[in-house]
Amino acid sequence: MNGAHAVARTLLECGVEICFANPGTSELHFVAALDDEAALRAVPCLFEGVATGAADGWGRMTGRPAATLLHLGPGLGNGLANLHNARRAHTPLVNLVGDHAVFHKKYDAPLESDVDALAGTVSGWVRRCEDAATAGSDVAEAVAAAAGAPGQVATVILPADVSWSEGARPAPPVAVRPPATVPDQTVADVAEALGGGEPAAILLGGPATREPALRAAARIAAATGARLLCETFPARLERGAGLPAVERLGYLAEGAMAQLRDVRHLVLAGARAPVSFFAHPGLPGPLAPDDCRVHTLATAADDAAAALGRLADTVAAGAVPVLQAAERPEAPSGALTAESAAAAVGALLPEGAIVVDEANTSGLWLPGATAGAPRHDWLTLTGGAIGQGLPLAAGAALACPDRPVLCLEADGSAMYTLSALWTHARESLDITTVIFSNSAYAILRMESQRLGTSADGPARRDLLDLSRPRLDFVALARGMGVPATRATTAEDFTAQLRTALAEPGPHLIEADVPPLF
Amino acid sequence: MNGAHAVARTLLECGVEICFANPGTSELHFVAALDDEAALRAVPCLFEGVATGAADGWGRMTGRPAATLLHLGPGLGNGLANLHNARRAHTPLVNLVGDHAVFHKKYDAPLESDVDALAGTVSGWVRRCEDAATAGSDVAEAVAAAAGAPGQVATVILPADVSWSEGARPAPPVAVRPPATVPDQTVADVAEALGGGEPAAILLGGPATREPALRAAARIAAATGARLLCETFPARLERGAGLPAVERLGYLAEGAMAQLRDVRHLVLAGARAPVSFFAHPGLPGPLAPDDCRVHTLATAADDAAAALGRLADTVAAGAVPVLQAAERPEAPSGALTAESAAAAVGALLPEGAIVVDEANTSGLWLPGATAGAPRHDWLTLTGGAIGQGLPLAAGAALACPDRPVLCLEADGSAMYTLSALWTHARESLDITTVIFSNSAYAILRMESQRLGTSADGPARRDLLDLSRPRLDFVALARGMGVPATRATTAEDFTAQLRTALAEPGPHLIEADVPPLF
Repeated sequence: MNGAHAVARTLLECGVEICFANPGTSELHFVAALDDEAALRAVPCLFEGVATGAADGWGRMTGRPAATLLHLGPGLGNGLANLHNARRAHTPLVNLVGDHAVFHKKYDAPLESDVDALAGTVSGWVRRCEDAATAGSDVAEAVAAAAGAPGQVATVILPADVSWSEGARPAPPVAVRPPATVPDQTVADVAEALGGGEPAAILLGGPATREPALRAAARIAAATGARLLCETFPARLERGAGLPAVERLGYLAEGAMAQLRDVRHLVLAGARAPVSFFAHPGLPGPLAPDDCRVHTLATAADDAAAALGRLADTVAAGAVPVLQAAERPEAPSGALTAESAAAAVGALLPEGAIVVDEANTSGLWLPGATAGAPRHDWLTLTGGAIGQGLPLAAGAALACPDRPVLCLEADGSAMYTLSALWTHARESLDITTVIFSNSAYAILRMESQRLGTSADGPARRDLLDLSRPRLDFVALARGMGVPATRATTAEDFTAQLRTALAEPGPHLIEADVPPLF
Repeated sequence: MNGAHAVARTLLECGVEICFANPGTSELHFVAALDDEAALRAVPCLFEGVATGAADGWGRMTGRPAATLLHLGPGLGNGLANLHNARRAHTPLVNLVGDHAVFHKKYDAPLESDVDALAGTVSGWVRRCEDAATAGSDVAEAVAAAAGAPGQVATVILPADVSWSEGARPAPPVAVRPPATVPDQTVADVAEALGGGEPAAILLGGPATREPALRAAARIAAATGARLLCETFPARLERGAGLPAVERLGYLAEGAMAQLRDVRHLVLAGARAPVSFFAHPGLPGPLAPDDCRVHTLATAADDAAAALGRLADTVAAGAVPVLQAAERPEAPSGALTAESAAAAVGALLPEGAIVVDEANTSGLWLPGATAGAPRHDWLTLTGGAIGQGLPLAAGAALACPDRPVLCLEADGSAMYTLSALWTHARESLDITTVIFSNSAYAILRMESQRLGTSADGPARRDLLDLSRPRLDFVALARGMGVPATRATTAEDFTAQLRTALAEPGPHLIEADVPPLF
């Protein structure tokens, strides 16, 4: 058995069942090995950022790593932005990055570059395979490293000759590090802080934005009066009717600081102490007020749900959590705007939907309009590297073939990884993509105003404008095999969204909305 | 004056006149500064790989650096693949990469990552600005580092607070390192080697693929019988009727080894000793035979044209170089194939055209079909990182607004940086793009056969196939504002190419050709 075959078999034996692939010559032995390991599903992607974003979506929804297959340094480079998002999401993910044969590297052939340095910037664990004999065990360790709490990106660099050399064998799974148990004293300390009567909030993040943690946190809130917050960009927030409602911390520092202004005890459960997304002149980095004590109940690597449950048992025995009532906005009419589009989404969001939110400024009303919709998952832009939504939706749809996926996407962001639409079509994924087409980098116009650099000068007008020419997303989607329509009124949009959600397979709706800024 | 303004002014004073930009929040002060420095032309790009590829095209055609404007680690990551190509092309290029404010980095905000490590993988020179007071001089040094022989990527990391802080001032240009003069003894040694009567070849590369070097090399060839070769992927090869014809070294190791089999003296002029693009089992890395002596006349950092001229004066006084005769294929008819499409290109290529060649397997007949066309430049995929062609064409067209650009592009490669078409439309660039649409990663099918992994298994069929669904490049181009047509016969293609070349502004032709593999 050659190294590539041992790697493929090991992935399967360690529970990896899908590989998002954009191979090149150095990966062809691995591609060949997939013929003999057909249980490892290979999904072709036309760009590496699609592969890495899809692997992130798969990992967020399954809790288990997908693999990627990438071609040397430039291939990894193209995948870095979505690996950055995966890193911030604590997504378990295994990159296989092909490299030149070991004996060939010294020649500095045209594709040679420092793969290790690139890998290190996004990976919690990196291993360069040196020998076919150990390729299997290297990959088994990579899967364990990726899957261990709190989840991370693990990268295996696989030289071509390691792939093609014989003498390899698959390796059995390696034990995965479970989430750590929070010490009793920590739970007791937080219980004491919450019991003092001062204003408190619980900031949920990482693994604590899922139902068990949410329910425990809601019991604590009901008993102690603590507010329930979650981090600005959760990897996967379970929400909707029947679940506890959680207030997301605002993206803008001013807003988040206002949310936290009166808090004297901030309890972190899976989240880190909140900081400003960007620095701004005159604003501090940390968002909690100076007189707020920050208590870490659980980090992302801890069993945050259990810790919250124990805390609830301590401070909230018998407390009844407040749950979100079922309620939807009415289907909107009139002008199509970010606000009316959000109402349509809220009116129609199906039970069990997976919502991928990269709507940016056009998404302002989405959380409110969908708060009381049937329960669903909300996946966000964890690392701030735009171009995540369309690939993430692909991975989520493959992970959960029985659930509808709604991808809410800003036009500017969509253009970074647009070829994900081809994967939507190729795999017949049940994804409805809404492009909020406002023909602007509106978030930069907003930030420009905030920074006081907002005079309407020619460079700013030019560089933040997407209207010359206007992008035609209906044509772009059709060019990649995704049926598409354009909506210019709220009624149009509602009708098109209803149709797209009702029909299986991919659809795209270009929603022409005015920019907010 | 704030740091951003000083940076913009310094770029202009150092001769940088264009900036390919995909900014984010951290770059907004620089965007604002451009309003006051309108001579620095800002070209918006919808993806960072478009910005870096365009900057590469600009640098190859002007010999002077363009700037890019990129947003933190993920933005640089998205630009890495084409920076890799620029690095291999020795293109002078200055990246401005915004970063978090210095005081903000410690908070590990969501977009924080190791920008320096990323920059190091593609840059010959990296500087992190620490202070507005020195931002101007940092940038002046970057321009000089980029422009100095042999040309390289220089990256300036510009924290947001350096940009917005006052107390900065522009810096004057820094002296640029000229190409080094080759010692007399080196010229004499090579003259002696060429005078011994053994079979010899001159391998041209780097700066030696332009007219003065070509003419000198052709004189030497005429006098000594040495063959004229050039590297497989020249950054910019001047060719066509009236110029010396040069044989490019083959992409496949077997082919290149056959070309070099009888050579006993290989003289490197601006090129490195040739090595196999990829390792293959049983093939050596170096391509020259064991009994071939390799003589370095000039490295890419040397004045290779002058060295060749001096060598010609020594060994070839009075020799008359052999020049390419004017000849074109006839306009083809019948089936549209890679071969007939090449004939059409050869029949119609305009005088002074800039040809960007990322046609991959579909380009097999292009060099032959265009050898005797009116003189033109030929730009190739120097680093092997696909997704170069459409952006490179944009940069070349902006650099040379009076010259037609013909971008010959493989379908698979086009999808990596397709949004460059929007820039073609936005800037009304005179670019004719031909997409060789064979619905396959045909080069990988070929490599798969070569590697002996070619059985037609399901994974290989799936991962190397682009036909399910077939990409519709006419729709994709129109979606970004570029007029487009599809050709399915040689007559169609010829007529469409004639029209596209005759009309100003961007056009795209989807040429449906069967895959060669």
